[in-house]
Amino acid sequence: MKTILYPNKKGWLKLRQRPRIQVKELNTLVNQVFEKINVEGDKAVLNYTKQFDKVNLKSLQVNEETIKSASQSISLELKQAIKLAKRNVEKFHQAQTELSKKIETTEGVVCWRESRPIEKVGIYIPGGTAPLFSTVLMLGVPAKIAGCKEIILCTPPNERGEISPAILYTASLIGITKIFSVGGIQAIAAMTFGTESIAKVDKVFGPGNQYVTAAKQTAQNFGVAIDLPAGPSEVLVIANNTCKPAFVAADLLSQAEHGADSQVILLSDNKTIIGEVLVELKTQVEKLPRKEIAEAALKNSKAIVLKTIIDCIAFSNLYAPEHLILAIEDSQRLIPKISNAGSVFLGNYSCESAGDYASGTNHTLPTNGYARNYSGVSLDSFVKKITFQQLSKQGIKNIGPAIEIMAETEQLFAHKNAVTVRLKNL
Amino acid sequence: MKTILYPNKKGWLKLRQRPRIQVKELNTLVNQVFEKINVEGDKAVLNYTKQFDKVNLKSLQVNEETIKSASQSISLELKQAIKLAKRNVEKFHQAQTELSKKIETTEGVVCWRESRPIEKVGIYIPGGTAPLFSTVLMLGVPAKIAGCKEIILCTPPNERGEISPAILYTASLIGITKIFSVGGIQAIAAMTFGTESIAKVDKVFGPGNQYVTAAKQTAQNFGVAIDLPAGPSEVLVIANNTCKPAFVAADLLSQAEHGADSQVILLSDNKTIIGEVLVELKTQVEKLPRKEIAEAALKNSKAIVLKTIIDCIAFSNLYAPEHLILAIEDSQRLIPKISNAGSVFLGNYSCESAGDYASGTNHTLPTNGYARNYSGVSLDSFVKKITFQQLSKQGIKNIGPAIEIMAETEQLFAHKNAVTVRLKNL
Repeated sequence: MKTILYPNKKGWLKLRQRPRIQVKELNTLVNQVFEKINVEGDKAVLNYTKQFDKVNLKSLQVNEETIKSASQSISLELKQAIKLAKRNVEKFHQAQTELSKKIETTEGVVCWRESRPIEKVGIYIPGGTAPLFSTVLMLGVPAKIAGCKEIILCTPPNERGEISPAILYTASLIGITKIFSVGGIQAIAAMTFGTESIAKVDKVFGPGNQYVTAAKQTAQNFGVAIDLPAGPSEVLVIANNTCKPAFVAADLLSQAEHGADSQVILLSDNKTIIGEVLVELKTQVEKLPRKEIAEAALKNSKAIVLKTIIDCIAFSNLYAPEHLILAIEDSQRLIPKISNAGSVFLGNYSCESAGDYASGTNHTLPTNGYARNYSGVSLDSFVKKITFQQLSKQGIKNIGPAIEIMAETEQLFAHKNAVTVRLKNL
Repeated sequence: MKTILYPNKKGWLKLRQRPRIQVKELNTLVNQVFEKINVEGDKAVLNYTKQFDKVNLKSLQVNEETIKSASQSISLELKQAIKLAKRNVEKFHQAQTELSKKIETTEGVVCWRESRPIEKVGIYIPGGTAPLFSTVLMLGVPAKIAGCKEIILCTPPNERGEISPAILYTASLIGITKIFSVGGIQAIAAMTFGTESIAKVDKVFGPGNQYVTAAKQTAQNFGVAIDLPAGPSEVLVIANNTCKPAFVAADLLSQAEHGADSQVILLSDNKTIIGEVLVELKTQVEKLPRKEIAEAALKNSKAIVLKTIIDCIAFSNLYAPEHLILAIEDSQRLIPKISNAGSVFLGNYSCESAGDYASGTNHTLPTNGYARNYSGVSLDSFVKKITFQQLSKQGIKNIGPAIEIMAETEQLFAHKNAVTVRLKNL
């Protein structure tokens, strides 16, 4: 981790930059897979699964038997943990339900919004060494609360053609029953067009590697919405002399272990604190199974000393981190100054892991500076808000003349006439 | 307008299709303009304005003097109409402000969301024959309510290098002072990169032709967010025997006059009503200045008779119209059945023009079937919602063990350790 002392504002602009992501030219491959799956459906999906995942599946859908038996291969302790996390995620997202408020903007003109679920949503859960069942919770729970009619889950099979029991158990606990053993570009293409076994969806959610990211981008060209633009995960910690250096080091490492491209930034108004955290980092990283990954991420990472904590907040707003930890005892006072961040963790006992798993907030958050212009996933991500308006005779009488003159000025005479015919009829 | 009687469900799928938009290959041009403006800034913007708009401007920003004097060239009546519309749009969007609710998901674990404005937003207002000052209201008012720090407005100059006084007056009324005489790809590119006079923005809003649409798409590759995917405007009217055929015809025409590619659909359970509306259409279209445009749009349009009004709602949900008018006296009872629509107009006196100008709802809505998976523009479009969480010692004690086992199962040991170091310290 490189330490930088009191950079000037021009230096800030450089320091906020993420390492440039080398996006490989995947478009040709993605378009090929999309076209083939659009035409050939399941057959093509099975072929690509054989080609890319080296598994010869007979069918894509995970059968009921397998889902049911998953529960038996998980410890009671893990099940209870998942249930606790589910309860908290439910509580927090349930509270995001918008009550419809009728507003009488002018006498006789009543306007309001009502939420409706996006009918069909697709959840993508990456494969790899670890089963990301926590993401099943973060996407499945709000989809269920929203009332999405069809929720399908795609996740790549391992080399034996199996899906992790933790993923199956979590999905089943939420009530997701349509689970498909398919990953990568072929999963996103299948959800975009629909196949014999996989339903076409309206919106695709979930993280993934560069293939999945490119496929989600392409899906948008076919009318499918996506949750968020993608980028590597990141944390920015602001620590002052009230922090616990061992906690800060542990938080930095929990981000660094995600991948060599993870972004980790430490800010402080106190050089000594930074020194203490760096010492802790060295000790703690040694004990990690993912030591090499974490060390690679730390190489790209920066510890920056600024004059004041207010300067640290200003830098953080410029950086717009996915996760912002304020390792500061009286951090509440800083909240109004935070303008760009995905999720914020206040004080010494609010570690990022809490939000990743069980506090109740969503862990699908804007990365790569997108916290400037995007929110993380919430209940809102699974609904549309439809506006309604009802005008009485009095209502059109009150606002009709204003509409007539505005429409006429915009040279839209049929718009004007739609009011005129009504006013004449009163 | 083509009349279709009792199509079967398979026929519905075909009927819901929009005419295929011929997207010209504009990418080469868009990329060229983007690159040039990224490097050369204002100079390139001025050159493109000369090339595309045939105007030789000295500076891009509209000066204070011109903005002030715009007020003098507008009638008092129009000013009052704009003020009435502004008040209603303000009332409706102000009511969308989300109050922060703290949720204690588990004892000692408090989570909440706070809205923050997107700091810099750009509003694009198309040029052409008519000045779309109503769109200035629809985008400017919620941007102001959200508290966006920098709001810039770009709109192409006419052949004399001027901007419509109605646009200048409306912008100034809202408090938008940074107005630039620049349109097309060059406007979107300038807001994407920033130039000497035009600020780089975080999100671009507003309608436009195919060049603007392609440019907004490209802007997303450079980290800029956009309001909505674009498509031609559309209305779907459901009418029964309680409708007024003259009103329905006027509403269909107010959509048809937008452009030859506008989509107009009429549904009814009553063949006679459809006949009466078609007769009214013929009479009313004759009197329109935009008669040719409206007639061209009507050629692509359909009147469909279905067995019941419930069938009509089902077809509408499949079609997912931008505007849905229920020309039905007791339309309230149908509201729960509406699942996909941008904005809904209830009863005989709620014409689309009301929502286009002055009822208070936003007129920037999802087209082309995107009402399935997108909401229209609202206050939410101008803010990010940041999640916060604060855990006390009791909080981490309560949920820490669950986090530890979940992180371990996902093989993220540093995530687990961030909890362990804290639990050990209690």
